[in-house]
Amino acid sequence: MAVYTEVSDEALRAFLAEYEIGGLLAFRGIAEGVENSNYALRTERGDFVLTLYERRVDPAELPYFLGLMDHLARRGLACPTPVPGRDGVALRELAGRPAAICTFLEGVWPRRVRPEHLAPLGEALARLHAASADFAGSRPNALGPSGWAPLLEACRARGEEVQPGLMAQLEAQLAAILAAWPRPGALPAGQIHADLFPDNVFFLPDAAGRPQVSGVIDFYFACTDLLAYDIAVCLNAWCFEPDGGFNLTKARALMGAYQTVRPLAAAEAAALPVLCRGAAIRFLLTRLYDWTHTPADALVTRKDPLEYLRKLRFFAQVESPGAIGA
Amino acid sequence: MAVYTEVSDEALRAFLAEYEIGGLLAFRGIAEGVENSNYALRTERGDFVLTLYERRVDPAELPYFLGLMDHLARRGLACPTPVPGRDGVALRELAGRPAAICTFLEGVWPRRVRPEHLAPLGEALARLHAASADFAGSRPNALGPSGWAPLLEACRARGEEVQPGLMAQLEAQLAAILAAWPRPGALPAGQIHADLFPDNVFFLPDAAGRPQVSGVIDFYFACTDLLAYDIAVCLNAWCFEPDGGFNLTKARALMGAYQTVRPLAAAEAAALPVLCRGAAIRFLLTRLYDWTHTPADALVTRKDPLEYLRKLRFFAQVESPGAIGA
Repeated sequence: MAVYTEVSDEALRAFLAEYEIGGLLAFRGIAEGVENSNYALRTERGDFVLTLYERRVDPAELPYFLGLMDHLARRGLACPTPVPGRDGVALRELAGRPAAICTFLEGVWPRRVRPEHLAPLGEALARLHAASADFAGSRPNALGPSGWAPLLEACRARGEEVQPGLMAQLEAQLAAILAAWPRPGALPAGQIHADLFPDNVFFLPDAAGRPQVSGVIDFYFACTDLLAYDIAVCLNAWCFEPDGGFNLTKARALMGAYQTVRPLAAAEAAALPVLCRGAAIRFLLTRLYDWTHTPADALVTRKDPLEYLRKLRFFAQVESPGAIGA
Repeated sequence: MAVYTEVSDEALRAFLAEYEIGGLLAFRGIAEGVENSNYALRTERGDFVLTLYERRVDPAELPYFLGLMDHLARRGLACPTPVPGRDGVALRELAGRPAAICTFLEGVWPRRVRPEHLAPLGEALARLHAASADFAGSRPNALGPSGWAPLLEACRARGEEVQPGLMAQLEAQLAAILAAWPRPGALPAGQIHADLFPDNVFFLPDAAGRPQVSGVIDFYFACTDLLAYDIAVCLNAWCFEPDGGFNLTKARALMGAYQTVRPLAAAEAAALPVLCRGAAIRFLLTRLYDWTHTPADALVTRKDPLEYLRKLRFFAQVESPGAIGA
């Protein structure tokens, strides 16, 4: 899906001449990714991924994203490392768009999440949080609590077509979430991935065949927010079965492994249910926005917003953090 | 564009276990290709391309395509080589579809054709024809002359919407082409690629920076037909400038290099203008069919059929084979 911009031979050659990565050996579009154009690039020095940033990405935010990836990679986290040109600059321009080359990561993202994925995921997430503790940049979470009411408004005109009564239901849920949301400073904050879905985490088996995280990709929703909110995103994205059931075994494996690296404060554990409701409504609202603003037969696959209404309802009836693995 | 079928982790693992190509290291969808789902696959033994054959491909024809690729690769042509499983069989099944793993080819297809591409192309095409001379299989050209009138009929209902008067024009052109078409046996025949467009030919520069063919891909229109018809397809696909002008320098470079390997018989050179008209109407008709049978906002990019009407008109006014490089 993800080649929106074609790159001419001359432009590519001139672009690569700005790097010290050797001659071009292969260049193919990558189907994964929805926001940007991605190419698998092979040069005499190895394999890379070339990304052209498309309209949904604000060019002013790219230094934050690339800087964070560079920072994490230097601290040993397996994530794409921006490759600088000869002048030391990683963020460049190609075919009229901001563009960057990053290292290629081996691994395969799980099409079906198994319980064995959750502990390595939890550990990798905690390492990401720990490694970013001394990162100097910051970026507000545009899709955080302050963004949810405007998103809901933007969906109002056609949201009822998705399910009658949906708007009133979401308004009530949103009001309850915002009322219970942790006050600024109440919980540890830092750089979070904010979109750690299974297709953004690559795994490879170790010698015993157990999955290990070989790479975390797609930092283009990363921002500065509550660290525990990243766990809430993962509980939403990794711990529900296809039939809608919440898999507590998976949640416990995630939380247990996370806490071997960074133990949760009591206030974080206590806040987890409302953070999970927040994460659920965040993905519900962006999906609902895309659903109501994208033609049914458009190029981009629309994801069902109601999947997250079911998750929101699940988290809304959780009585204690222990019920979701905290 | 080209990942129509998702492959589950378990199915992929079971599939790869049937091969002796080592453990899985990476697996990503490839954006190129319209007919089938293609994945870039890396294992401990190297890089491969996994193809799942989708609805447009008749499974009964796959042994011909894979057999031809295997035959050509054994004779030294740089084309994807089907990789057999432990049982020696290359054509297998995955996710309910016929599937095969082929070798990965380095190289980059030219986004803009330069004159230097044409001689290596011509030589590669002639080598393909020479190397397939002793191939035992055969496959009728479903998109050859006998298929054009039915295609035209299938476009009749909506063809006039593309351009008023188009149908009458195409009927007249088609009648003239079929009347002038070489009789069976009049010209050398064999296995042809039949779809050798720039995105199916990979190039890499030699030590002096001159482009050399590093691979020919996508044999899924290959068939048994007039060898010179393959040249006619290339003259259509490689020798027109974006402004519509026919580049005789490119045509001569193609024909000259082709004939260093396989000189054309006089009858082939004489037939080239009508073969070019045939190739033009073949791509015009399939594009017109797609144009009139695909919603304007569908997943697949529709290609302009009228580009080939202009090419058809150009070849229709050619007075001698020399005017197109023969």
